[in-house]
Amino acid sequence: MNELDTLIKGRSIAIVGAGLVGAGWALVFARAGLAVKIFDANPVIANAAIPLIEQQLVELQAHGLINEPAADIVARLSLATDLADAIDGAAYLQESILERVELKRALMEDLEALADADLIIGSSSSGIVASAFSSGLKIAARVVIAHPVNPPYLVPVVEIVPSAETSPQTVAFVSALMEAVGQSVVHVRKEVEGFVLNRLQAVLLREAWALVEEGVASCEDIDKTVRDGLGWRWSFMGPFETIDLNAPGGIADYAVRLGPLYRSIAASGKHDQQWSDALIGEVESQRRGFLQRGDLEQRRAWRDRKLMALSAAKRDASE
Amino acid sequence: MNELDTLIKGRSIAIVGAGLVGAGWALVFARAGLAVKIFDANPVIANAAIPLIEQQLVELQAHGLINEPAADIVARLSLATDLADAIDGAAYLQESILERVELKRALMEDLEALADADLIIGSSSSGIVASAFSSGLKIAARVVIAHPVNPPYLVPVVEIVPSAETSPQTVAFVSALMEAVGQSVVHVRKEVEGFVLNRLQAVLLREAWALVEEGVASCEDIDKTVRDGLGWRWSFMGPFETIDLNAPGGIADYAVRLGPLYRSIAASGKHDQQWSDALIGEVESQRRGFLQRGDLEQRRAWRDRKLMALSAAKRDASE
Repeated sequence: MNELDTLIKGRSIAIVGAGLVGAGWALVFARAGLAVKIFDANPVIANAAIPLIEQQLVELQAHGLINEPAADIVARLSLATDLADAIDGAAYLQESILERVELKRALMEDLEALADADLIIGSSSSGIVASAFSSGLKIAARVVIAHPVNPPYLVPVVEIVPSAETSPQTVAFVSALMEAVGQSVVHVRKEVEGFVLNRLQAVLLREAWALVEEGVASCEDIDKTVRDGLGWRWSFMGPFETIDLNAPGGIADYAVRLGPLYRSIAASGKHDQQWSDALIGEVESQRRGFLQRGDLEQRRAWRDRKLMALSAAKRDASE
Repeated sequence: MNELDTLIKGRSIAIVGAGLVGAGWALVFARAGLAVKIFDANPVIANAAIPLIEQQLVELQAHGLINEPAADIVARLSLATDLADAIDGAAYLQESILERVELKRALMEDLEALADADLIIGSSSSGIVASAFSSGLKIAARVVIAHPVNPPYLVPVVEIVPSAETSPQTVAFVSALMEAVGQSVVHVRKEVEGFVLNRLQAVLLREAWALVEEGVASCEDIDKTVRDGLGWRWSFMGPFETIDLNAPGGIADYAVRLGPLYRSIAASGKHDQQWSDALIGEVESQRRGFLQRGDLEQRRAWRDRKLMALSAAKRDASE
């Protein structure tokens, strides 16, 4: 019996909310060999989910990113008729409905009424913390944030963020499940705004916008700085390992040598300004000079091919 | 006549300062077909430079990253007997001496006395601005920062940062030269501390250290967040293109939807704290749990192999 069988014991996965994120999660679990039941309150979205996944599987197959015929993966997917049907026989539910606290709260109340006492619930919420929609419910112990990057079948990171009411068993189960289906688990120990991923993105973006506003560099030059430089190490090491290797004695040595400089740089920026309308207009205008609005969709397909190539390369890399 | 011949007209490149950075630059220029004369005031460092480059060429060859026999590249390198010899016949000088303003100023004064009126000078300075060591000299118009990521023969980005005295012709020449030898040029229009690359790195690192200090996540989990998630897109798109593709209507649409959230996230952090000794000790201890101090050097070799693989993959990628 492998790890996944031990965790799931022949039961299924419920996907609730079947847009891009929910469909991406359905693919992750079905690819790992699990039966997946998909529910969306909007039947148009529900009916589009499996065709969308079939299309994504064609791309994955072309990049050598699935190990069995696509049809075998699709055969594990089914549409549920309602929420009760979706959770019938499910060990785990991945919630990916709209990012609105009242909708998530209403879903949790429905689940409180319908679900078996052992259903574990992970939420794809990218900003709303679990306590905001599960606090005070009996199921709160079994609810945790499991925040992916889109699409989760390509980019493995998932942030696990418990509320104060989430049980350690829930965190342990969801972490083990995510690792078993091939994701990379990050433990966020406190309910901070933006979790870890979007906090890191937020500070870098804020500085990037400020550099444009202050006339220091163009959007394209800032993008180049990252894609032809800074982003390379980060794509396989992360920021701490990067600086750990950048001083003879490791990271403490680095901190002594460069900490004051970094603090001075960071403190010299303007931190609290809004992105003004004028600045947004300037950045939009610069970007549209590189990529016309009508070409956005085509460029997104290019991005996804690049992510697949990166995923394949990472899988093949001998460590 | 190709672009490079037009720029250099049969003259040579002078490398002054022959440590890791200077030797890396020597490799960049020699690989592009140019004659390179290397000078370092410390003969031990000067004598080590060519053997170091030979060793780097073995690795590059193994990854398919050079297009001719390594010996042909090495044949273009020579050691200069002194500064005057290094610049004799040179069209361009890349300065990579120690990051100390009084040493850079002294070198510029020597060059003011020795150099022909058309020698152009780029400085590898990662923090000191050009005005700090060239201001008031006659050669100031021909001095500009050309800041690489190490090693420049693998990671292409170079920040071009003029002082107020740098002439537009100098910026144009160095930019064209860098593009012609395969680097990716970023124009930094003002002498801001940390230029663009280290400003972006500084704000992300500051947030990362703060997240550890506040007990939100471990170093390893923060590294995972970037290397298994956030860093992927940045390694081939940069931060602006990433968000431009992440809203249906492009970047202005994204700014309206998510700008307030990002501002709120960014404003919620502690921005001005030092990396305290206790925090440095904590981070050092966490990192040494993953990588013992005695293994740092071996891990640096691993990093360089990963960078070479990434470089080869980027070169092969059809856009």
